[in-house]
Amino acid sequence: MTTYSEEFKLVARPGEISFSKGLDGVVAAESTKSYVDGLGGRLVYHGHPIEELAEESTFEEVFFLLLYDRLPTAAELARFTGQLQQHREIPEEIYAIVRDHAARRGVHPMTVLRTAISALAVFDEHAEEDTPETHQAQAVQITSKMATVAAAIGRVRSGQAIVHPRSDLSHAANYFYMMMGRVPDAFEARLTDVLLILHADHESNASTFAALVVKSTLADTYSAVVAGIAALKGPLHGGANEQVMKMLESIGSPERVAAWLDEAMAQKKKIMGFGHRVYKTMDPRATILRGYAREVTRRAGTERWLVMAEQIEKTMVEKFAQKGIWPNVDFFSGVVMASLGIDPSMFTPLFAVGRSAGWVAHAWEQRQDNRLFRPRFVYVGPESEPYIPLAERK
Amino acid sequence: MTTYSEEFKLVARPGEISFSKGLDGVVAAESTKSYVDGLGGRLVYHGHPIEELAEESTFEEVFFLLLYDRLPTAAELARFTGQLQQHREIPEEIYAIVRDHAARRGVHPMTVLRTAISALAVFDEHAEEDTPETHQAQAVQITSKMATVAAAIGRVRSGQAIVHPRSDLSHAANYFYMMMGRVPDAFEARLTDVLLILHADHESNASTFAALVVKSTLADTYSAVVAGIAALKGPLHGGANEQVMKMLESIGSPERVAAWLDEAMAQKKKIMGFGHRVYKTMDPRATILRGYAREVTRRAGTERWLVMAEQIEKTMVEKFAQKGIWPNVDFFSGVVMASLGIDPSMFTPLFAVGRSAGWVAHAWEQRQDNRLFRPRFVYVGPESEPYIPLAERK
Repeated sequence: MTTYSEEFKLVARPGEISFSKGLDGVVAAESTKSYVDGLGGRLVYHGHPIEELAEESTFEEVFFLLLYDRLPTAAELARFTGQLQQHREIPEEIYAIVRDHAARRGVHPMTVLRTAISALAVFDEHAEEDTPETHQAQAVQITSKMATVAAAIGRVRSGQAIVHPRSDLSHAANYFYMMMGRVPDAFEARLTDVLLILHADHESNASTFAALVVKSTLADTYSAVVAGIAALKGPLHGGANEQVMKMLESIGSPERVAAWLDEAMAQKKKIMGFGHRVYKTMDPRATILRGYAREVTRRAGTERWLVMAEQIEKTMVEKFAQKGIWPNVDFFSGVVMASLGIDPSMFTPLFAVGRSAGWVAHAWEQRQDNRLFRPRFVYVGPESEPYIPLAERK
Repeated sequence: MTTYSEEFKLVARPGEISFSKGLDGVVAAESTKSYVDGLGGRLVYHGHPIEELAEESTFEEVFFLLLYDRLPTAAELARFTGQLQQHREIPEEIYAIVRDHAARRGVHPMTVLRTAISALAVFDEHAEEDTPETHQAQAVQITSKMATVAAAIGRVRSGQAIVHPRSDLSHAANYFYMMMGRVPDAFEARLTDVLLILHADHESNASTFAALVVKSTLADTYSAVVAGIAALKGPLHGGANEQVMKMLESIGSPERVAAWLDEAMAQKKKIMGFGHRVYKTMDPRATILRGYAREVTRRAGTERWLVMAEQIEKTMVEKFAQKGIWPNVDFFSGVVMASLGIDPSMFTPLFAVGRSAGWVAHAWEQRQDNRLFRPRFVYVGPESEPYIPLAERK
């Protein structure tokens, strides 16, 4: 890892200038939002351990915490919740895009989410204003509407009628209601809330970082969030939980786990849901979700998924824990979400509904003390090439 | 600037850990695409100085060079040009989005471009395939269609009928034709080509970097380009050339330049079009564009803009050149584009039509030797905060 000096010669031979690929271990910014303790296995949102928030808090409260760096009073929370409720509905033009695009074969739900959130800016008359008020208003509105768009995409994909938002439910309960077409019971509502809380922020992950690079040009918050969605879509980021469920489904039953794992390891296949750039021990979010997995699989009659997951976990931890490879959040979230009745293709949109809070909170933090993200690339191409006229090229 | 060690304590007081804000001077990747010599005032695309390409080459050839790291043979260029021509048309559904969104008051053209390019993925049946063939096909298709979408946005904004692409013109001539509704003469076609060549790539600028962060999650190329558009929209990036024209228009006439500059400097106003993160001397693109500005302002009868620009340049260089503040590409590009008949609101979309080549070339380079971009943020929030029950908070 090195900084770039203008004295470097024009042509660097590959590998000649050391740098950290993928910016691994490089500090890109300061933040008050969240801390990931990769060796201790801790995740903290502004001073509050994730276990405490998953136990005591709600998505609304966590979103307020991330945006404003403190827990709200009762009156502030009521007002903030009211704002989130009031902005849930989306224009008919956005439903039209969702209806047309999400119904098409082979279209990724995150593609539709990306387009729809981008299009929402058109219907915000303050989208181009760069004031503290509009930044905070956009943060709330985008996060509120993200749930509506994501749920609508799922309904259209499965050929069901779109369910419009209700304004009398919590963010999590209303999201479940729009996805499933029925109001959740207390357990389902709580588990949806916990999923959104656990996914709300995670320091400098790739999607948050993409959102910040965009925000640093002083682009509007819609632009920043669209970049976040674009990055989360990638299989190395938001797509991993879906891959875990595909893995479990392809294994099929608990008695086939051992043979499947042996073969996968012999082929040096990547086992989805294990390992993390920062965590070198158990991801605290995975521990929380494993706790919920017991109850939700029992209710759904999907205990076999949990049995299989725990068999895989046991073998993997025995073999790889010493190398710092442990289950990450994606490993148990797939089992939990599938058991809640969510189609695997809609796992990443749920991730986006939660992470929206982190994207807009970090974007607002960036805006308050901005500097354009503009690193250097080391040029490893030729110093000088002759310009041979077209007719003479071979 | 430092790398992050897990041994750092949880709470860093602001400023305690040194890092480079905005990743200024930090190397983020290796690239064979372009080299910016900030002290020497040189820009090189894969071994070819920008002056040579602006003189000898075409956008098609430069795009091939950036994508494949060599100049094409005559046969290859003919095939590549044919591919770009063949993919120009866009689905009626995309025109419908452009017609609806671009006609609305106060909507930024880059907002519409971002949505429309995002939506294009829906109509690409190979959008989700991660193969060398699909990456290269998407690179060509997106860059081809970017011009069509950008031109259509301009037509709708100015209340004119959309002009569909022709397949018998060069990329630049066809773009001009779709913008203006008439085939350009040789000078106009060449100048449009030069504008696209000069904007095609610029190392690790913020929009290219945003595109790479997205691509590094193994997201599709549409996702990467959408992030590039989102970043280019920001006034600190693509929006600067529009600000230069607004400045000239607000000054109004050459005789008012001196008084305007005195007042602006007394108020410590930022003079748009000057200074660059990397260039500490004259931006070579600005020199090339100043050359074209003479002819295009004479043809358009807009010589006063150039006179004003050169007065501002003279004063600014006298005062600030020693501090490394010089005219950048945006300073003369506004005068040139406006004199070509392009509305200032459509300057940044033209920048995107050119830069699309760089975005997709860097995305393909990233994909061939990928590592997820995932830096660290230093946490400067509280180590531990008590969770006070809601009713007891004050």
